[in-house]
Amino acid sequence: MKIGIIGTGHVGGTLGSRWAQGGHDVTFGTRHPDSPEIQNLLAKSGGSARAATVAQAVANSAVVLLATPWNAARDAIAGAGNLSGKVLIDAMNPLLPDMSGLAAGTTTSAGELVAQWAPEARVVKAFNSVGYNTMAEPVFGDERAVMFYCGDDTGAKQTVRDLAAQLGFDPVDAGPLNRARLLEPFALLWISLAYGGYSREIGFRFMRREARAGA
Amino acid sequence: MKIGIIGTGHVGGTLGSRWAQGGHDVTFGTRHPDSPEIQNLLAKSGGSARAATVAQAVANSAVVLLATPWNAARDAIAGAGNLSGKVLIDAMNPLLPDMSGLAAGTTTSAGELVAQWAPEARVVKAFNSVGYNTMAEPVFGDERAVMFYCGDDTGAKQTVRDLAAQLGFDPVDAGPLNRARLLEPFALLWISLAYGGYSREIGFRFMRREARAGA
Repeated sequence: MKIGIIGTGHVGGTLGSRWAQGGHDVTFGTRHPDSPEIQNLLAKSGGSARAATVAQAVANSAVVLLATPWNAARDAIAGAGNLSGKVLIDAMNPLLPDMSGLAAGTTTSAGELVAQWAPEARVVKAFNSVGYNTMAEPVFGDERAVMFYCGDDTGAKQTVRDLAAQLGFDPVDAGPLNRARLLEPFALLWISLAYGGYSREIGFRFMRREARAGA
Repeated sequence: MKIGIIGTGHVGGTLGSRWAQGGHDVTFGTRHPDSPEIQNLLAKSGGSARAATVAQAVANSAVVLLATPWNAARDAIAGAGNLSGKVLIDAMNPLLPDMSGLAAGTTTSAGELVAQWAPEARVVKAFNSVGYNTMAEPVFGDERAVMFYCGDDTGAKQTVRDLAAQLGFDPVDAGPLNRARLLEPFALLWISLAYGGYSREIGFRFMRREARAGA
């Protein structure tokens, strides 16, 4: 799979290098391809990964991960070139600068705004609800952390589902794109725990069981 | 512990009867104490439980569980009498009638509105994020489902924490009351899964692990 990464911070870097290690064809979009950060990322990613401009990373890819800070997202999309038909994975949360809440409320969501700004793309909300360290290792002991995703395009969601499963996540379909209104607060819950009494080494397992007699 | 239950549906009924079975002194507040539903609830709860008016249930209790439908909540509080100093557990979600979203957005939450309407109470948001069947049995195999709670009163939160732990939950402090803005969408996530591809026999485990080397 040809994957472009927009936003090469913790999330984009972790997912991109892990996908590259798994055999995917990864292009990191960046204005600073020679920076130590990007060079380090490429060294971690293995031989198939490369750095290019954002527009080139998009043009070269069928799947684009969008993992910029929220306040950079709109410009990043505007500069991304033709997204027609691309699977665009929105891994962002519209956090207020002090992380006290969400800049986009339950009357809409970052995922839906992204779909408005990139109407030709097949937007899937995913990879927004745990920290990068969990993306690096989604398995706790022998249990897989859940990864929720949502969107309105069945094929795009299946692609994202496979990408999550390949990393070791337990992927769970959370429904249409407007369920981003749930997954974004869910992410802030994770964040508030990770920075408010626990550590980043936390995650959620989605448990299923048979209905009990009499239940 | 003397516990009053306002709202004797699935959530209030399950929690009230389980608390009663565990030795707590439970009063179900109801306008229809002789109805088959309430009589059935009392039979399940054991000898110590009783039915009374809502005002009596509140007057008789140190802890009050509020588990009415959202559109009945404000009136229920207005009719509850003196809530001064009571631990008021808000187990509701402000769901739109078709469950497509939340009637109260991320600029506020049901938990915070409850605190406005009952300024003298020590409000804790809890027991809103899983279904009643999980409240009946929070253990999946040998794993406890998480129960988040939040609030601004430390003592009240400790009380709710203990009540959750006694039921078999893994109680986790999610911070101040405005974190209800996260726990309410989290609940809708559970709901949308339970009714959209899974069953009610689902839950979340909160996993912790040691930081890995190099992470």
